[in-house]
Amino acid sequence: MDDHAQAYTPELVPTLGRQARAAAAQMASASAATKAAALRALAALLRQHGAPLQAANALDLERARAAGLAEPLLDRLRLSAAALETCAQGCEQLAALPDLIGEISGLRQQPSGIRVGQMRVPIGVFGMIYESRPNVTIEAASLAIKSGNACILRGGSEAIASNRALAALVQQALGAAGLPPEAVQLVPCTDRAAVGQLIALPQYVDVIIPRGGKGLIERISAEAKVPVIKHLDGNCHTYVDDPCDLELALRVTDNAKTQKYSPCNATESLLVARAVAGAFLPRMGAVFAAKGVQMRCCPESLAILQPALGLATTAPSAAASHDHAAPASSANGNAPTPLLVPATEADWGTEYLAAIISIKLVAGLDEAIAHINRYGSQHTDAILTTSHVHAQRFLREVDSSSVMVNTSTRFADGFEYGLGAEIGISTDKFHARGPVGVEGLTSLKYVVLGQGEVRG
Amino acid sequence: MDDHAQAYTPELVPTLGRQARAAAAQMASASAATKAAALRALAALLRQHGAPLQAANALDLERARAAGLAEPLLDRLRLSAAALETCAQGCEQLAALPDLIGEISGLRQQPSGIRVGQMRVPIGVFGMIYESRPNVTIEAASLAIKSGNACILRGGSEAIASNRALAALVQQALGAAGLPPEAVQLVPCTDRAAVGQLIALPQYVDVIIPRGGKGLIERISAEAKVPVIKHLDGNCHTYVDDPCDLELALRVTDNAKTQKYSPCNATESLLVARAVAGAFLPRMGAVFAAKGVQMRCCPESLAILQPALGLATTAPSAAASHDHAAPASSANGNAPTPLLVPATEADWGTEYLAAIISIKLVAGLDEAIAHINRYGSQHTDAILTTSHVHAQRFLREVDSSSVMVNTSTRFADGFEYGLGAEIGISTDKFHARGPVGVEGLTSLKYVVLGQGEVRG
Repeated sequence: MDDHAQAYTPELVPTLGRQARAAAAQMASASAATKAAALRALAALLRQHGAPLQAANALDLERARAAGLAEPLLDRLRLSAAALETCAQGCEQLAALPDLIGEISGLRQQPSGIRVGQMRVPIGVFGMIYESRPNVTIEAASLAIKSGNACILRGGSEAIASNRALAALVQQALGAAGLPPEAVQLVPCTDRAAVGQLIALPQYVDVIIPRGGKGLIERISAEAKVPVIKHLDGNCHTYVDDPCDLELALRVTDNAKTQKYSPCNATESLLVARAVAGAFLPRMGAVFAAKGVQMRCCPESLAILQPALGLATTAPSAAASHDHAAPASSANGNAPTPLLVPATEADWGTEYLAAIISIKLVAGLDEAIAHINRYGSQHTDAILTTSHVHAQRFLREVDSSSVMVNTSTRFADGFEYGLGAEIGISTDKFHARGPVGVEGLTSLKYVVLGQGEVRG
Repeated sequence: MDDHAQAYTPELVPTLGRQARAAAAQMASASAATKAAALRALAALLRQHGAPLQAANALDLERARAAGLAEPLLDRLRLSAAALETCAQGCEQLAALPDLIGEISGLRQQPSGIRVGQMRVPIGVFGMIYESRPNVTIEAASLAIKSGNACILRGGSEAIASNRALAALVQQALGAAGLPPEAVQLVPCTDRAAVGQLIALPQYVDVIIPRGGKGLIERISAEAKVPVIKHLDGNCHTYVDDPCDLELALRVTDNAKTQKYSPCNATESLLVARAVAGAFLPRMGAVFAAKGVQMRCCPESLAILQPALGLATTAPSAAASHDHAAPASSANGNAPTPLLVPATEADWGTEYLAAIISIKLVAGLDEAIAHINRYGSQHTDAILTTSHVHAQRFLREVDSSSVMVNTSTRFADGFEYGLGAEIGISTDKFHARGPVGVEGLTSLKYVVLGQGEVRG
């Protein structure tokens, strides 16, 4: 605890829950215009209050620096003017999107005479648990407003001053639009017990969305007494098929792996049809080598890449010592890291989040699909092919939340999918799969319109 | 355990799970024609094997009788020729329905050039836990086949011989159509430990659907390590609005309460707008009185009904002894049960499943909506009104899985809604609300079609 956090009491979270439940009913019946007005008011406040927001953020940064936080983590914590402008623009974009709440679909008359359809309605109250980035506070708040939900936010303790300043503006915007400020509440203390309570109050919280490391998400899933929209691994595959467009395959695979190493939708494993490997792999390997990407190869791909690239290979015994379980932080492309390494079984199931890729030759489509369904994490997988039949089978048979043809796995993202915003990516099959936007925070209830029909 | 059940071993359920997971992949990619063929084969087998099925059922009935099971429970257990024919017809109807699996919706091009849509796919493996009625075995199996899922069924121990005979036919039908028989497996033992395992194997089971008493469902929900599609109370309301069509209101309210007392979609609570109570309640009360329905009334409705019906009222002190928590089994309409009783606070939250109705006057729409959202169970609630504005507000603001205008709550049913079949009714908001058919056993994955686009 510190000056910017309130003291924890056991009554704190239940009180927030009661208030959220009451606010949720008002949010659910708010008009599209009112919700859009609140989002535009929030955008305006974020622009007007840049200086005080950055001052609050400076307190978090100072404390984090004093605590010895590494520079990449400080970066995530930083609320730059550009980051605030992005948040403001995100609110305006959401305000401009069509409002999904109340939409009725599939209304059809049944033999009895009644007409039956489904209406899209908010889920109610969601709890969001996240780590350092304070802009998640605005992303979650704006999605809650647009979707007609209430939410309770529990950000990282290191961002408490920033988050409290941001949440105060959100509540001001809600009030200005005539909506209940309690629709978006931040847990104002940093005590861990608050998280334990938040995930175990089904009477007040309908779903929990954790965003952060795998450890956090596994712990929350195991302990939650309410449904969790969770995102675990992103062990994404790109499969270069026979037949394929070689130039397209080179360009897309390069982008899928190297455009950015840390996102969950970056490709971690490359599968290549044996028939095209001779033409494809040497050129692809040269691109990876030039960018310092370590290739962890099956024996066959190694046998192609080694002579083609003229690179030394680490002996299997030495290579076996590389760390499969965690992102290989040492593998940043610098000289000491070998570029060609024999893969071990563990590589096929590993999400590196680093400049490392596993490479495996396969006989063709069947083996590729079987490999992905066995070792993948059901996140995002792509086929690069010119065969219509292969594309259709890949789309249908690969059991992942996003399946792609002839494009980069890096596109698996709520903004790129046109959702307007993203509160997370679900690797579950239940309720919502893949990028979760406004629609993932809603459900469908049945509406039945009659003219006095009775059941016989 | 008995002769018709296998011995329990701790390896039994995990083995079923592994087999189900393997079968699920084949079911997911089975063609619509193959699944329809399996359903038609099952219908034919049910008709051909009527005699041996009824012989197996006779064993269950005999054992149940010896164990002293009450007649209504024996009735639920009975697999009559008519019940088998209904099962067979249900399979044929499902076979004739359009196949939803693989359907792509919302495919739209995004600014990057990629086209993004969603494909409907099976959930994977569901576990079903149910009590006496053996026809649920066929309902669950046929829905699994149609939706491209695998399932593991755990029926009641009293129906084990019937269920094993039915499940054997299901596996025969699957095999005949070239589908894996392991797509539908019955837990062949009656040990309770098998249930505990089935609900705690997320690697093999994606969702659990319990069907039975509230106690069973609460226990499973509390202990499950996978999502549960659950159905708790059905405390359904009919609200007679001002203005309304009086004749329609009388006919529909009568049907909603008295057409059948035991289903979860029967109306348990009647709300009446004060302005129409004088015209409506005496006539409605006369209908209820004639059918022996006990009316538990607020003071105002009691003051209208008592003189109108000329009935004696039990004094509040005596009435307070009626059982609010459980269905009032004594209240079967026979002479000793008083027809007019003052309601207590507990009545507003009670699902009677019996010839009892609670009655309350309200000022109008606002109070009706507030009452339903406070005391209801989010199952099914209806407004009877001639006001378009009131109908729209009721549909939007009542937070229940089915909201109805001018028709009977008894219509809340998968068949009546045109779903073709129903595996249960969900009172949850997450994933599926209301009657759950084929669609509730599926989810949507993203499909992304590109032409070599890369992310910038």
